[in-house]
Amino acid sequence: MAKPCVLVTGFAPFGGETINPSWEAVSQLEGEAIGLQQSHIIHTKELPCEFDKALVALYQAIDKYHPSLVLCVGQAGGRAAISIERVAININDARIADNAGKQPIDTAVITGGPVAYWAALPIKRLVQALHQAQIPAEVSNSAGTYVCNHVMYGLLHYIDTQQLDCQGGFVHIPYLPEQAVKHSGAASMSASNVQQALKVILTEALANPIDIKLAAGTTH
Amino acid sequence: MAKPCVLVTGFAPFGGETINPSWEAVSQLEGEAIGLQQSHIIHTKELPCEFDKALVALYQAIDKYHPSLVLCVGQAGGRAAISIERVAININDARIADNAGKQPIDTAVITGGPVAYWAALPIKRLVQALHQAQIPAEVSNSAGTYVCNHVMYGLLHYIDTQQLDCQGGFVHIPYLPEQAVKHSGAASMSASNVQQALKVILTEALANPIDIKLAAGTTH
Amino acid sequence: MAKPCVLVTGFAPFGGETINPSWEAVSQLEGEAIGLQQSHIIHTKELPCEFDKALVALYQAIDKYHPSLVLCVGQAGGRAAISIERVAININDARIADNAGKQPIDTAVITGGPVAYWAALPIKRLVQALHQAQIPAEVSNSAGTYVCNHVMYGLLHYIDTQQLDCQGGFVHIPYLPEQAVKHSGAASMSASNVQQALKVILTEALANPIDIKLAAGTTH
Amino acid sequence: MAKPCVLVTGFAPFGGETINPSWEAVSQLEGEAIGLQQSHIIHTKELPCEFDKALVALYQAIDKYHPSLVLCVGQAGGRAAISIERVAININDARIADNAGKQPIDTAVITGGPVAYWAALPIKRLVQALHQAQIPAEVSNSAGTYVCNHVMYGLLHYIDTQQLDCQGGFVHIPYLPEQAVKHSGAASMSASNVQQALKVILTEALANPIDIKLAAGTTH
Repeated sequence: MAKPCVLVTGFAPFGGETINPSWEAVSQLEGEAIGLQQSHIIHTKELPCEFDKALVALYQAIDKYHPSLVLCVGQAGGRAAISIERVAININDARIADNAGKQPIDTAVITGGPVAYWAALPIKRLVQALHQAQIPAEVSNSAGTYVCNHVMYGLLHYIDTQQLDCQGGFVHIPYLPEQAVKHSGAASMSASNVQQALKVILTEALANPIDIKLAAGTTH
Repeated sequence: MAKPCVLVTGFAPFGGETINPSWEAVSQLEGEAIGLQQSHIIHTKELPCEFDKALVALYQAIDKYHPSLVLCVGQAGGRAAISIERVAININDARIADNAGKQPIDTAVITGGPVAYWAALPIKRLVQALHQAQIPAEVSNSAGTYVCNHVMYGLLHYIDTQQLDCQGGFVHIPYLPEQAVKHSGAASMSASNVQQALKVILTEALANPIDIKLAAGTTH
Repeated sequence: MAKPCVLVTGFAPFGGETINPSWEAVSQLEGEAIGLQQSHIIHTKELPCEFDKALVALYQAIDKYHPSLVLCVGQAGGRAAISIERVAININDARIADNAGKQPIDTAVITGGPVAYWAALPIKRLVQALHQAQIPAEVSNSAGTYVCNHVMYGLLHYIDTQQLDCQGGFVHIPYLPEQAVKHSGAASMSASNVQQALKVILTEALANPIDIKLAAGTTH
Repeated sequence: MAKPCVLVTGFAPFGGETINPSWEAVSQLEGEAIGLQQSHIIHTKELPCEFDKALVALYQAIDKYHPSLVLCVGQAGGRAAISIERVAININDARIADNAGKQPIDTAVITGGPVAYWAALPIKRLVQALHQAQIPAEVSNSAGTYVCNHVMYGLLHYIDTQQLDCQGGFVHIPYLPEQAVKHSGAASMSASNVQQALKVILTEALANPIDIKLAAGTTH
């Protein structure tokens, strides 16, 4: 029987960037062991920054690895902290075209799906663990309406409808310093800090999927 | 038979403020006629900034007036534009206590309700109309996790479960200039511009509840 | 003998904008009386958004009117409050070309001039008066390095070297709402509030040119 | 004869912080060699976050080491990039009290001194070198009105009036990640990136004190 595993995904570059910090960070984790007593192997996968095709690639990887946890990672240029996404919504509303030139406006991610899914991760526990590791982190209440939200919604819909025994969620990360050089005034986070953050998230979620009560809301 | 009407709500002050710009603006609309050929009367209602009690007050007003449209308005201190909210989520996560001292963390707005509801308003049409009226406006993909989101979710749940023939949604407005004086660097919008914005929204939604396709999404 | 007067200047549009809120606001004040017992007449002047030529136009207007006070007004897209500039520095460093296509980099405004001049206005008193009038306002410690700073430096150098009996300074104002419509998320201020602010500034400075002690600094 | 040296200073914590990232980063450089063929030794000094006393400590260190270059480093909480300061102004305007409880408002750093001094560093060359090293960096046109600007002004005044053969200037650095954890949404930079940035600055300035022409200005 195969060793238990987790799947971590990043994205291909988009929007004029030549790198995507999500895949830069995620690809470094390939093959590492994580969890209590190194219980799980980390598999990684680069998703295309394209509506629908990203989900095809994601579902193939899930079917191949049968992971205990799927963590999808994307770039949020301008944010300063690791953002643990709370909810995915059933909408595609693209401000810019994806890498295949498609720009859906107000279409459903999954026709007939519910309006939204909660992240299947202990999001407050993750924020607490990241803060204890001295890494800026926050709960986010919107993953946007682009390919990131699309992938998060599609992931949670798959877990739900396929009745997978699997945690799942989405994390947005800041620009890398080398990207912020070209975006005057934009915040960034070093690749080593991002990698450490991803390991903290995987370790903590595997250790205890039940969330804690911790105020991390916003008034608007 | 009573003339058709709309219901517009604002909030009592909260979070240390002595006024709430939502009620300042909304209360000025009481009794005015709106819509094509002045078809609808505007009723207004101040909601308490309290979880649950705000919904009791809202439902009483809806039952009393049987409005064709309910627009709830709240303050989003720091935002620069009129924000038309796209979605309400079934969570209360209060960073600060409400006016009754309650601070729920990760409880449901409506136990057993769906994860989220879409606004029952033509949100893109409203943004377009506001822009044509030279008023800064945007679609927002999160109404937060405080009393504003609570009221928006409760409103849409009521419309849905009571099968009301009624449009409904939520709009966040900036600080008034007199508030921004005390919040260094914060954006603001004048009371007259906010009132004009609310009239544009009501007029446009009554004229045509069917939305348009207009890219107004965010990548994250 | 001519009635005492003040000179208020605005700028022509630049940087792709079709209007400049400074001239929109300033031009409305032409010919009005201001000060205790309406003691002073307001003259206004639109300055070209061009290095050097802006100063030629400014000096001509000063020589023509012999004002008791010169207030130059410019647009600071993105700022949320009326900014009273504290200091002008002897440098031109243009991120974009001016309206004549010139883009000086690290040249002097006035060759041989001192590194900087303080505003010849009671800047803290003006902030206090604006706050009392419920208008967001702040002291700014940098007027940038473009035509605005150029004009402020040139004005103060002229007052100093010509030994004019004249107050003088620079005020940056936010976008108008109609401009912010095209700059997603940018703060704005209504034209009527900006005009009110300019009148408060002129009235207060004419009433008492001696400044007060009021903490309005920044740690960085 | 003593080996040529440079002096790099950081600050003690202030404003409720328990660490100051400037001293955290600077102290790691003590005793290292820098410059072409390791030509210079780095001396470091922690300055008290107090008006006047900081200058006493700075002048003592300069008199002791006779450095070829003095680089003073301070924290700019909220900024995302390494900020090379262009100019220091002759004013103390403290929004909060310093560590000795003093809160000067609109007093001179040096009575009778000029309004401002330019940094005695090739500031554009430094920004270019930092960008080539993939580190976010920018020219800043205001060092504020607190102890940072006070120290920068005092340093440049000392170099000027004592006719020292010495480069000198000021650099603001972001929060460390462990500080940003407590400042929701604030940008940060890792300690290792900050140290790398300081070495790039010292190396580049020692290699060539003559600046380049590079547009790095702001319109306001």
